[in-house]
Amino acid sequence: MEYPSKLIEKAVEQMTKLPGVGKRSALRYALYLLKEDTCITEEFCASILQMRKGVKKCKVCYSLSDTEVCSICSSHKRNHSQICVVENIRDVMAIEATQQYNGLYHVLGSVISPIDGIGIEDITAKELVARVKDGGIEEVIFALPTTMEGDTTSFYINKILQPFDVKITIIARGIAIGDNIEFADQVTLSRSFLNRVPFNQENNI
Amino acid sequence: MEYPSKLIEKAVEQMTKLPGVGKRSALRYALYLLKEDTCITEEFCASILQMRKGVKKCKVCYSLSDTEVCSICSSHKRNHSQICVVENIRDVMAIEATQQYNGLYHVLGSVISPIDGIGIEDITAKELVARVKDGGIEEVIFALPTTMEGDTTSFYINKILQPFDVKITIIARGIAIGDNIEFADQVTLSRSFLNRVPFNQENNI
Repeated sequence: MEYPSKLIEKAVEQMTKLPGVGKRSALRYALYLLKEDTCITEEFCASILQMRKGVKKCKVCYSLSDTEVCSICSSHKRNHSQICVVENIRDVMAIEATQQYNGLYHVLGSVISPIDGIGIEDITAKELVARVKDGGIEEVIFALPTTMEGDTTSFYINKILQPFDVKITIIARGIAIGDNIEFADQVTLSRSFLNRVPFNQENNI
Repeated sequence: MEYPSKLIEKAVEQMTKLPGVGKRSALRYALYLLKEDTCITEEFCASILQMRKGVKKCKVCYSLSDTEVCSICSSHKRNHSQICVVENIRDVMAIEATQQYNGLYHVLGSVISPIDGIGIEDITAKELVARVKDGGIEEVIFALPTTMEGDTTSFYINKILQPFDVKITIIARGIAIGDNIEFADQVTLSRSFLNRVPFNQENNI
């Protein structure tokens, strides 16, 4: 595709760096910004630059925050004896949206993935161990992806937390609410049999 | 969705202004930029700001350009006696990609659309008339959308160009290459019969 302007071409090229954005979408974005007032583009870029410069990692849980310690870690209303281990901040937001969990988080940043060259030293595992070592933690809950990489990570962290007197749990896997049994995959279905729980109207239905 | 940071929330809000970008995509873009080096974000914003400030409308054809007169209008290799009338710059790029047309363009900016409050004075129709009036134009080719709005626009411009000694044509409508006859819509199929052309291996197959 030949662009009528080098400046448009360069902006489109930059925008295609965003995940899932192709040349067509990027051109659409560029033409939208060109159509609107200059101040729209200025505000757009200013907010992105401010975010990039202002947002930092919480020094307790490694989630993203505007402050040194994030609002969850500094809240007195949260249960500071529980830590939920997640891969990234999107997972924190998804769990927060359920309003079901009132403890703290620990954001690993990634899961162990040898194929991508991500080992245990690239995730915040030793920072988690340090938090547990500091005391006051009663339960560590794994909420990592149900993939081989996620399972490897849970397995490894479980191993390095063994010396400590802390309960280690993992969120339930099974048939998703609204799914048909016949369409569930074999592994999920057999796991849901293995991990069946006492029937209880409040939790299960 | 509750954001862990006001700065992220503001940037996401700005990015959802882009056409077709929802909150989830915008958050994905924001997290991508936060993950990469600060210089990536700076380069990203700089290229967009430079584009918004540098790109202007060609004063001949109203296409977008880095210069006062765009590269097509100022080229000596193009046929300056033909003008192809299009809605926007994406159409120029699509037609250029075919390498089938060697004349000039005229970008209307929009088509007449009373429902959106866009009338004849909001498009560059009188600028087109001025170009034809100036002389040297032998053919005006309509390549507008095959919608009611596009047809209305072609109809209107055809009317105001009547006083001038210029050939007015419209690009062919019919069954798209690769389409099955049985799946063509009725209007297209009946038009393709009305506008049938002498069989000629070079042009038609």
